[in-house]
Amino acid sequence: MKALWLENQQLSLQDVPIPVAPDGEALIRVCLSGICGTDLELARGYYPYTGIIGHEFVGEVVESPDVSPSPNADWIGKRVVGEINAVCGECEQCTNGRPTHCEKRTVLGIVKRDGAHAEYLTLPLANLHRVPDSVSDEAAVFSEPLAAALEIQQQVHIQPADRVLLIGAGRLGQLIAQTLALTGCDLRVVARHSHQKQLLEARKIRLITKDEIQPRCWDVVVEATGSSSGFDMARRAVRPRGVLVLKSTYRGDVMVNFSSIVVDEITLLGSRCGPFAPALRLLESGAVDPAVLIVARYPLAKALEAFELARQPGMLKVLLES
Amino acid sequence: MKALWLENQQLSLQDVPIPVAPDGEALIRVCLSGICGTDLELARGYYPYTGIIGHEFVGEVVESPDVSPSPNADWIGKRVVGEINAVCGECEQCTNGRPTHCEKRTVLGIVKRDGAHAEYLTLPLANLHRVPDSVSDEAAVFSEPLAAALEIQQQVHIQPADRVLLIGAGRLGQLIAQTLALTGCDLRVVARHSHQKQLLEARKIRLITKDEIQPRCWDVVVEATGSSSGFDMARRAVRPRGVLVLKSTYRGDVMVNFSSIVVDEITLLGSRCGPFAPALRLLESGAVDPAVLIVARYPLAKALEAFELARQPGMLKVLLES
Repeated sequence: MKALWLENQQLSLQDVPIPVAPDGEALIRVCLSGICGTDLELARGYYPYTGIIGHEFVGEVVESPDVSPSPNADWIGKRVVGEINAVCGECEQCTNGRPTHCEKRTVLGIVKRDGAHAEYLTLPLANLHRVPDSVSDEAAVFSEPLAAALEIQQQVHIQPADRVLLIGAGRLGQLIAQTLALTGCDLRVVARHSHQKQLLEARKIRLITKDEIQPRCWDVVVEATGSSSGFDMARRAVRPRGVLVLKSTYRGDVMVNFSSIVVDEITLLGSRCGPFAPALRLLESGAVDPAVLIVARYPLAKALEAFELARQPGMLKVLLES
Repeated sequence: MKALWLENQQLSLQDVPIPVAPDGEALIRVCLSGICGTDLELARGYYPYTGIIGHEFVGEVVESPDVSPSPNADWIGKRVVGEINAVCGECEQCTNGRPTHCEKRTVLGIVKRDGAHAEYLTLPLANLHRVPDSVSDEAAVFSEPLAAALEIQQQVHIQPADRVLLIGAGRLGQLIAQTLALTGCDLRVVARHSHQKQLLEARKIRLITKDEIQPRCWDVVVEATGSSSGFDMARRAVRPRGVLVLKSTYRGDVMVNFSSIVVDEITLLGSRCGPFAPALRLLESGAVDPAVLIVARYPLAKALEAFELARQPGMLKVLLES
């Protein structure tokens, strides 16, 4: 099968064998996969990884080794999305309700597990979620980043009366904006690019310029740029005892003035993978509409070209189809 | 009156006029004041401040301008401790239940308000708390740092089954250890000096050496050393989705790896001033015993000598009496 292979920070399209699903896993034919900021960072060497990259997908289960009379047979032919952390179920994290933090986890297209920019992938059945019939492939392929956006509300109680500032309106930022807006909070978004702004304005999500941000006024600030300048802006904006959510992939270390964090009693909160079930519910209800982020679709054979486009500053979602 | 004056990072004992309490404030004769780590950092230039330093005290109200028939008269002759933030009551912080973060605050012996290492001080009546008769001056003088220790439980729900690691067993660390132990949590403390260890062991508080700290295992880690090495130790110890409390005065900036904070979804929490009423309740009940921290008492006239002693590594509480 065709697959996008990463090795020594070099991406290449390769022909590799179709994977074999081990017991408890399913072989999935990938319909669509999405290029994510983490893919781009991996290709730049953010984290050492060798293998097929990609972790956002929608596909169809074609095989599962231990079928009938087990309920596994039910999965065959089903359209699915999948949680990306494959976990042991036995470690302290798993048994304490934090499976996405499993110490032995493999992660689809990120840590020791071949990923989704390929014709086929395998994932544990436990990771799969059926896609409701009314949700299109173009929407379902956003399940993973939408779940990651919802992780913010999973971690922080966003009150409807809160003033919330989102810094960054890229691929993930747009989804965060759409989900935060559903809380009814007083949300403003700092967006850099005009097409990012247009998408937000079309949903009546209010923009704010850097210069308009009142310092020390925002109950919750979400930093989704992954830059040290974005963090500095967030730090100035958040109110005493406010929450600053780190929601991006950061390169290198950031200098932080701990004394001011102590004096203002700020909460700094890292946020990563989130819950798929509510993401699918919001896709089904139409309360979020991620498909507007799609700027291009490429056949898998042209994945390198697709990555070139995805690397452009401010670029939103580029999809691969196989 | 005699007072310990700070100017251009120079401490000196000076004769200054007894302050006059403005309307709404009380003139308090200081009985005992305590030398705190923040005093030492102020004297090193941590924050530009000119004036009388000191913010931990117990004293007696001797005057309040608008007495009878107002209830102010009730304060005269009373033994009191005082919250150190004098606030406007009208700003966004004050009106939203965060008076210690008042944007116009003055802070006793720290920000634009003469402090407690003096024969007299003034504070708003609203800041005062009566000391129960059964609480000695030697215990009451710890009300402010004990309240600061309790701010941790005010911010973080410490569950009795939590594994909690405290790094640092100095002046504030000892009080944090005593209060955390009251939650029933599985507490271990990293202490450097033998007399610090002895005080903890006398209360059956369990110690742990740096090398014994299991990485990624602790639900809550409190960093009370103010050092970058203490933070690194805390960061290694805290579990995924755990809470790392910053509870000290930090010099300069600290390098933080944000990606790992995001991947492990860590909460970093700054913690400062806390509630006096519960501190006084715990002093009254005897559940905490801060007086064991006292290593020396000096007359105010020998304040410079007292500061020299307080600066010794690992030194616990040095008191001034006037």
